[in-house]
Amino acid sequence: MSGSIFGKLFSISTWGESHGAGVGVCVDGCPAGLALSEEDIQKQLDRRRPGQSRFTTQRKESDTVRILSGVFEGKTTGTPVSMMVVNEDQHSKDYSALENVFRPGHADFTFDSKYGIRDHRGGGRSSGRETIARVAAGAIAMKLLGELGIHIDAYATQIAGVSVSKDRLDPEEAKSNPLCMPDKEAALKCEAVLEELKEKGDSAGGIIECRVDGLKPGIGEPVFDKLDAVLAGAVMSIGAVKGFEIGEGFAAAGLTGSQNNDGFFACKTGEGSLTIAGKADHSGGTLGGMSDGGPLIFRAAVKPTPSISIPQETVDKDGRTKELVIHGRHDPVIVPRAVVVVESMTAIALADLILQDMGSRLDYVKNYYIGK
Amino acid sequence: MSGSIFGKLFSISTWGESHGAGVGVCVDGCPAGLALSEEDIQKQLDRRRPGQSRFTTQRKESDTVRILSGVFEGKTTGTPVSMMVVNEDQHSKDYSALENVFRPGHADFTFDSKYGIRDHRGGGRSSGRETIARVAAGAIAMKLLGELGIHIDAYATQIAGVSVSKDRLDPEEAKSNPLCMPDKEAALKCEAVLEELKEKGDSAGGIIECRVDGLKPGIGEPVFDKLDAVLAGAVMSIGAVKGFEIGEGFAAAGLTGSQNNDGFFACKTGEGSLTIAGKADHSGGTLGGMSDGGPLIFRAAVKPTPSISIPQETVDKDGRTKELVIHGRHDPVIVPRAVVVVESMTAIALADLILQDMGSRLDYVKNYYIGK
Amino acid sequence: MSGSIFGKLFSISTWGESHGAGVGVCVDGCPAGLALSEEDIQKQLDRRRPGQSRFTTQRKESDTVRILSGVFEGKTTGTPVSMMVVNEDQHSKDYSALENVFRPGHADFTFDSKYGIRDHRGGGRSSGRETIARVAAGAIAMKLLGELGIHIDAYATQIAGVSVSKDRLDPEEAKSNPLCMPDKEAALKCEAVLEELKEKGDSAGGIIECRVDGLKPGIGEPVFDKLDAVLAGAVMSIGAVKGFEIGEGFAAAGLTGSQNNDGFFACKTGEGSLTIAGKADHSGGTLGGMSDGGPLIFRAAVKPTPSISIPQETVDKDGRTKELVIHGRHDPVIVPRAVVVVESMTAIALADLILQDMGSRLDYVKNYYIGK
Amino acid sequence: MSGSIFGKLFSISTWGESHGAGVGVCVDGCPAGLALSEEDIQKQLDRRRPGQSRFTTQRKESDTVRILSGVFEGKTTGTPVSMMVVNEDQHSKDYSALENVFRPGHADFTFDSKYGIRDHRGGGRSSGRETIARVAAGAIAMKLLGELGIHIDAYATQIAGVSVSKDRLDPEEAKSNPLCMPDKEAALKCEAVLEELKEKGDSAGGIIECRVDGLKPGIGEPVFDKLDAVLAGAVMSIGAVKGFEIGEGFAAAGLTGSQNNDGFFACKTGEGSLTIAGKADHSGGTLGGMSDGGPLIFRAAVKPTPSISIPQETVDKDGRTKELVIHGRHDPVIVPRAVVVVESMTAIALADLILQDMGSRLDYVKNYYIGK
Repeated sequence: MSGSIFGKLFSISTWGESHGAGVGVCVDGCPAGLALSEEDIQKQLDRRRPGQSRFTTQRKESDTVRILSGVFEGKTTGTPVSMMVVNEDQHSKDYSALENVFRPGHADFTFDSKYGIRDHRGGGRSSGRETIARVAAGAIAMKLLGELGIHIDAYATQIAGVSVSKDRLDPEEAKSNPLCMPDKEAALKCEAVLEELKEKGDSAGGIIECRVDGLKPGIGEPVFDKLDAVLAGAVMSIGAVKGFEIGEGFAAAGLTGSQNNDGFFACKTGEGSLTIAGKADHSGGTLGGMSDGGPLIFRAAVKPTPSISIPQETVDKDGRTKELVIHGRHDPVIVPRAVVVVESMTAIALADLILQDMGSRLDYVKNYYIGK
Repeated sequence: MSGSIFGKLFSISTWGESHGAGVGVCVDGCPAGLALSEEDIQKQLDRRRPGQSRFTTQRKESDTVRILSGVFEGKTTGTPVSMMVVNEDQHSKDYSALENVFRPGHADFTFDSKYGIRDHRGGGRSSGRETIARVAAGAIAMKLLGELGIHIDAYATQIAGVSVSKDRLDPEEAKSNPLCMPDKEAALKCEAVLEELKEKGDSAGGIIECRVDGLKPGIGEPVFDKLDAVLAGAVMSIGAVKGFEIGEGFAAAGLTGSQNNDGFFACKTGEGSLTIAGKADHSGGTLGGMSDGGPLIFRAAVKPTPSISIPQETVDKDGRTKELVIHGRHDPVIVPRAVVVVESMTAIALADLILQDMGSRLDYVKNYYIGK
Repeated sequence: MSGSIFGKLFSISTWGESHGAGVGVCVDGCPAGLALSEEDIQKQLDRRRPGQSRFTTQRKESDTVRILSGVFEGKTTGTPVSMMVVNEDQHSKDYSALENVFRPGHADFTFDSKYGIRDHRGGGRSSGRETIARVAAGAIAMKLLGELGIHIDAYATQIAGVSVSKDRLDPEEAKSNPLCMPDKEAALKCEAVLEELKEKGDSAGGIIECRVDGLKPGIGEPVFDKLDAVLAGAVMSIGAVKGFEIGEGFAAAGLTGSQNNDGFFACKTGEGSLTIAGKADHSGGTLGGMSDGGPLIFRAAVKPTPSISIPQETVDKDGRTKELVIHGRHDPVIVPRAVVVVESMTAIALADLILQDMGSRLDYVKNYYIGK
Repeated sequence: MSGSIFGKLFSISTWGESHGAGVGVCVDGCPAGLALSEEDIQKQLDRRRPGQSRFTTQRKESDTVRILSGVFEGKTTGTPVSMMVVNEDQHSKDYSALENVFRPGHADFTFDSKYGIRDHRGGGRSSGRETIARVAAGAIAMKLLGELGIHIDAYATQIAGVSVSKDRLDPEEAKSNPLCMPDKEAALKCEAVLEELKEKGDSAGGIIECRVDGLKPGIGEPVFDKLDAVLAGAVMSIGAVKGFEIGEGFAAAGLTGSQNNDGFFACKTGEGSLTIAGKADHSGGTLGGMSDGGPLIFRAAVKPTPSISIPQETVDKDGRTKELVIHGRHDPVIVPRAVVVVESMTAIALADLILQDMGSRLDYVKNYYIGK
């Protein structure tokens, strides 16, 4: 298969190329009875839509989603929810010069190597537009998680070498600046750096942090489908992501056990029941591949956009050296638009793991089958 | 499912607890006709066996593997290859004190939360012994890859805060020192640091780098089963791994596009055919989720061993505060023993993706079905 | 998941309800380089389109398919092929009377039981229109199999109690009568019986036989994914199919081993190479779950259409007894339209198993990876 | 893969050959907290053990099962349950004459064709001993279903051409005669016929019927994973099964809609709640691929044992004609021993579908995650 299906129970199947009829996704396995409207989806898609700031591509598309199945009288019916976004503002001719040339940092060469044929227009299947399908499916997963009291929040902690300050980190701020940085000061500084890069025709990368609250302990399957592993696979499958870490992540490698271990403590919840939690969160909210009841925190490294207008040396299909200058409408940085994509993949992965956890105990199964 | 199955075509199913009858794996989907003996497996298992240096647990087990099926007259038959290692040196009583206490940094609390029942002896299913099954299956995958000219090499580039020097990095050296570091000088320095930590009853983490040579371009499936994503999932599923990065990884987040892009160039191979390759390897050997024909390079961050003999504060099942001192036989650092586990998961993931790639082109399918 | 995904490598994901926006399918895993046009798909869809004879529903829809992705310059690119058929002739109001009543023989009660919500219009997800997605995906699979020299032919051997004569069985004849029966005489007799049933407002069932030629030996996976098992699952998943048998099928239960065993014999093929084949075909072309190189022959039993205009006694949601008379446009027999659906599911299952077989031998893998 | 994994959530992975070290199965996904002992498994294995009557092979093996993992203090822990039965009474030399000859009706030729290599001793992977793994896994599934009030009962309704009488059908009787026939008179008649066949060195087939009680409505997933389709795939994957039908099955093809439709009626259960059920059971307990709350009834056709001692004509690997007389210890009829195998596959398939159904409704998910 071409790897366009994700999830065992909350299962999504995506399709579409940048310059084809559109992009879409079919979600199989969303529980019946979830209130769902096109607005729920559109709201999330609008967060990744281009043209919202001067740091994103000027391609102009409304990216209007249409729900084609699986919703009846405002609720999911349990059958597949198919969604589609029509491609509108295609400048296919912009790409004719690229038909036989391999753009550095792009998937042109590898697609050609794998399939022997390639829709070269706008990156084809490897275009950033592919993430529309992830965000649409993610919007459904997020509604589902919302019903369970789970909340996901991602933001950029570093762009173009400018990092946010841990002391000033405020996820709400990320919603009000175009760079989705949770630190106004850092965002302003970053804008200046990006302005400079843009002028040179260059591009920048960054780091996205994601935090999940409301996850009950025990989500994730031991061994191969550990929470960490499934999230890593989900997030690393987003184009341009080159690294993933959870909790202390790479920093943990340099700590000692006595520094890195999170001791447990007991606390009483509102209803007086006992809750056990970790004292610190070096682990990022997982132990042994399962959620520990605390907030889940992980980060993804995003490489700089490979489409730059600075001349680059490369070759064509026949091995002839070519100097390449990429025109067209590109993002000098994709990090802000990728924030919602990270949230979406997180939501999809969690929805799937939560459904999987339902059968983990005999008493859960009996309660479902027989009732109490 | 409890997440103990990995792979779509080269599919492994693992089982076993630390203090049960043994640990094992069933490999379904290994192509028929591969020469395979118990020695092939044992050789790899011996690399992870405890008791080989003073920095690993003194638990003494021969970890002798037995092939139970799927091999006939020295060759795989295409049917499942089941393998088992009997548990020998079990000191189950060492763990009776831990029955109701949650060890910090371990999976005790999360296993209890998920299943409501837990084999507390030696970590049960979350014991490091679980990796025996990975290494046994990985040995088969590695033999298969060897037939295709693919070679995998992992080594520790950082342990206990001591990093190897890029200038001195020599993978061969990693085979001759007990820390599997590809830099003798760093290894010696590191041993001293570890000696000190061991005396204090503390532990250390580290970073493992893995390099794959011989991978043809186009391996990995676009979108969700990208080479990077599948490897990240495979490697992050190893207990104690908290981060994964490929190529420049997290460093790429701070580079510009012009710095990070790898231009292509053409070269002639031995037989005079044209090969196209990247000029540098910032990408780590993947573009768009598919191998680019160059060496694949990625890193995994390993947290410090959570079992330390320094007193720790924690709670028991009833929420009572407990001071915990972990006795028993533990590794002050598991990084050297994890090196072969990283290689194994890499081999399994690559074997699976290579088999998946076989159906990617009509001419491959026709060649297989009809011949030329 | 709601069970709308089929296949491991040639993987299809279907969606859509009778009275929603449309029905569709996303095919993930079709090899790149296959010539494919909308005409290829339309040709097959036209075989299941209603309104072609007086024995099928008079609902009038062109069922025009649109390929939305995965095809570039007339060839598949290896990326998902998404296809959609818009619903046109919807008389949703015909169904308002059925909102709270459970039609006998239909899925109304079970959908309600499972999901607690149901799109009652025209059967919703369980409508016969769901098979459009199977036929569209099957058309691609059939094109792929055609490239390998594999041919699939299905026809009705029994309808409304009228059986074809084995002596007169001619698959070509099935293409020229409206009942898809491979025996003109039987077809004429059958038409008379159906005419009578139609007048009474009653309906009929039948048996479809399917024959596959050109399958090389060894297709199908031993144990759970036997050729017989995968085909049985694929064909029994078609609505209204209540039985599946291969070769002698149920008749084999009454034979002795000496009667039922097919002795082997050797024959020379055109190129002088040795071929071994079975003397008879009691087995239906499989042994041990793998194809034996001979023609594959199996049958599916189709129940009579449950929508009849004869008054039926049933209950509504609240358990009140109701007399039900179904109006609307229904097929007195669906067997002729189901013939192409059986062929389609067969093609999809075979395409998937053939791709799976590619990794069954080391020499196949080496030939693909290294060439000879 | 070689097709030895079955199930999405209750997932089993089997291995082993007739004349290797043993046969086994790893069950991944059994809910934690289920009471389970080796006796639970052994009891079912003893039902398929050879040597229990003069109509089954005289191979003498105790077939003693050992649970290797996943059970702690008498309960399942949620981790994989690995089980193994050692092969004991192997007469491998009996098979040396068969190394290069293809036995009619067996998988020798197709295994050779697929893999190019074959463990010819005793049928290797395609031996009837493979079903030990199914029965061991099925015993766990049956215990799980028992906790939910679900009961499975299979018996032979036809052997060697002798059918049971519907009027005398008594499932309890099947437990007390060696042929597992639910009709004493038919069993006695059948024994006489088998005695005759045995003397001639010939063999017989038969039909197994299976009935499931206690299934709540809504089990099974619409479209491809219909209850009927999953059961058909599960049962047809048992060696020697050549046909599957549910409810009226093939007979439904000859009925009219008015005859075959099951009208619904309402009844009050013990607790006074409303239950809706079908008036008859032509459908066999499924509608639209989901259980309808009534008993599930289906049948499997089993071909006659292919190992007969009557001389047969066949060929060897080089295409030379050979007269074959099969010696060794074979069952003149396998139907009685297959009864428990049919029950086992049914239990595994149902356990898997029930776990899948748990996520079908938002209120189920909320109830599990938040409680009421």
